[in-house]
Amino acid sequence: MYRIGIDLGGTKTAAAMIDDNNVIINKLSAPTQPEEGNDKVPETIASLSLRLCEDAKIKPSDVSVMGIASPGAINSETGYIERAHNLMMEHYPLVDKVRELTGIGNIKIENDANAAALGEAVAGAAKGAACSVMITLGTGVGGGFVIDGKVFSGFNFIGGEFGHMVIEYNGRPCNCGRRGCWEAYSSATALIKRTREVMEQNPDSKLHEVCAEQGKVNGKAAFIAARRGDKAAEALVDEYVSYLCCGIVNVINMLQPEVLCLGGGISNEGDGLMIPLQKKIDEEIFVRGIGRSTEIRIAKLANDAGLIGAANL
Amino acid sequence: MYRIGIDLGGTKTAAAMIDDNNVIINKLSAPTQPEEGNDKVPETIASLSLRLCEDAKIKPSDVSVMGIASPGAINSETGYIERAHNLMMEHYPLVDKVRELTGIGNIKIENDANAAALGEAVAGAAKGAACSVMITLGTGVGGGFVIDGKVFSGFNFIGGEFGHMVIEYNGRPCNCGRRGCWEAYSSATALIKRTREVMEQNPDSKLHEVCAEQGKVNGKAAFIAARRGDKAAEALVDEYVSYLCCGIVNVINMLQPEVLCLGGGISNEGDGLMIPLQKKIDEEIFVRGIGRSTEIRIAKLANDAGLIGAANL
Repeated sequence: MYRIGIDLGGTKTAAAMIDDNNVIINKLSAPTQPEEGNDKVPETIASLSLRLCEDAKIKPSDVSVMGIASPGAINSETGYIERAHNLMMEHYPLVDKVRELTGIGNIKIENDANAAALGEAVAGAAKGAACSVMITLGTGVGGGFVIDGKVFSGFNFIGGEFGHMVIEYNGRPCNCGRRGCWEAYSSATALIKRTREVMEQNPDSKLHEVCAEQGKVNGKAAFIAARRGDKAAEALVDEYVSYLCCGIVNVINMLQPEVLCLGGGISNEGDGLMIPLQKKIDEEIFVRGIGRSTEIRIAKLANDAGLIGAANL
Repeated sequence: MYRIGIDLGGTKTAAAMIDDNNVIINKLSAPTQPEEGNDKVPETIASLSLRLCEDAKIKPSDVSVMGIASPGAINSETGYIERAHNLMMEHYPLVDKVRELTGIGNIKIENDANAAALGEAVAGAAKGAACSVMITLGTGVGGGFVIDGKVFSGFNFIGGEFGHMVIEYNGRPCNCGRRGCWEAYSSATALIKRTREVMEQNPDSKLHEVCAEQGKVNGKAAFIAARRGDKAAEALVDEYVSYLCCGIVNVINMLQPEVLCLGGGISNEGDGLMIPLQKKIDEEIFVRGIGRSTEIRIAKLANDAGLIGAANL
């Protein structure tokens, strides 16, 4: 069975041929160039897909399914991208266009965060779980929810926006227009902003030397400086972990997923993040009715999650 | 097809025979008396059920399904009540006990808030919706989540605790041990507490006359005094509706249910609640990707939701 996964981004489009065991056997990529017009996007996808078929020595009609992970608001039923800022697209029939250009019959499309959650569910950190949530701590806080091997994104396909759950009423402003969204506390962007503020308030903090070494203020600095025993950085990590815990426990109380995976840049901290986080979660979880609690795990597939998830749509 | 729904409460147990159209054709009730020992509970359920069968002139073996809506943490797979404070039960095999006493083979059990959500989904305000959430604004803030006619309560059956989503980090203390849970703002209990505080701060408020008329401080007083033009009450209703909106928009952003039903005492306010609430929700909803938004509706089945939901488990 030949399956193609596409990870469509504003800058780069990746395409992979994926085998029955969810192993990537060939991966190609090309610039997306959305500024060259909407139709450039399916052209790039088609050209990468046809090269994958050539490399595998198969005809496009031999591809059993192609899945596309796309940013933005996607209608998985019609195959339209309804709105995707970084693709400069509105109400665009991407699936139909790719089908015309490739001759591949069975093409699915899903939001990229949802596809990544599915990838982790079928082949990554949540493999084998009856239901799982993936939370991505990157530029924003992305999310995806998978039940029995299927993405759940609500009746209108735009669910899974866990990052836009307010955890602090009237709190920090969020890009979405609300105040106090989880994203404004737990994204890498938010941590970097807070790191800058803490550095300004603490001219003697080791955060300054760490950021000089890193060449910039990034999402790692607070964790590194905390490991060096810097008090201001320790307090910052504690604050970050507390807000992260707050949102995670909210999700658990509502959905009780078997596994909750953490992905994105901040999740690379590993134990430095997970040990204090798990401790706080254990303190806040209140319902232990039947003695089984959500496992918190670090995502496994990194950038391949979207590709593998897409091929499993 | 004969179906029996049981609504088990700490004080009262209700039982109903329900027809194929989800109409209640006979309803009985009796005191639960959990203080008389765990086994009193299945005895009461059995005696009500056998009377329903007698009234319908059928044998217990003719009952195609009996469903029990129970408070507490329920294991729907094993039929055990794992923990229910107001039934004084821990790890009790209720389904097995009722089966022994009645001879009815097919018995299901579910948490009462989840059963009520299912009732509204199959026969009430969310009838026909692909997915729905029910939020009950009563003593606490209860919740239930239904997808394609089935309760979703996570891998361990204790999901749906929407009331225990923190919306104000480090906010008002909640019974669950966390701070800032939605329940501490949007339950009737929370509104009554705030009404008392506002009355103390505003000796000239019409809240005093309204509560004197009502014979107590209740969840209606703020709405009634606001309708009489009282400024303090208007501000209180606005505060209540704002927090309620915050939690609802959180749920929509995450789950995008086709319908979100509001039940419980406060929902009886009707338009007095719904008009300002819908206005605030429309302001805060940010994703309108594919032009379909969650409908907010008042629950229809009142106390029968649990009975009808139970019969549909």
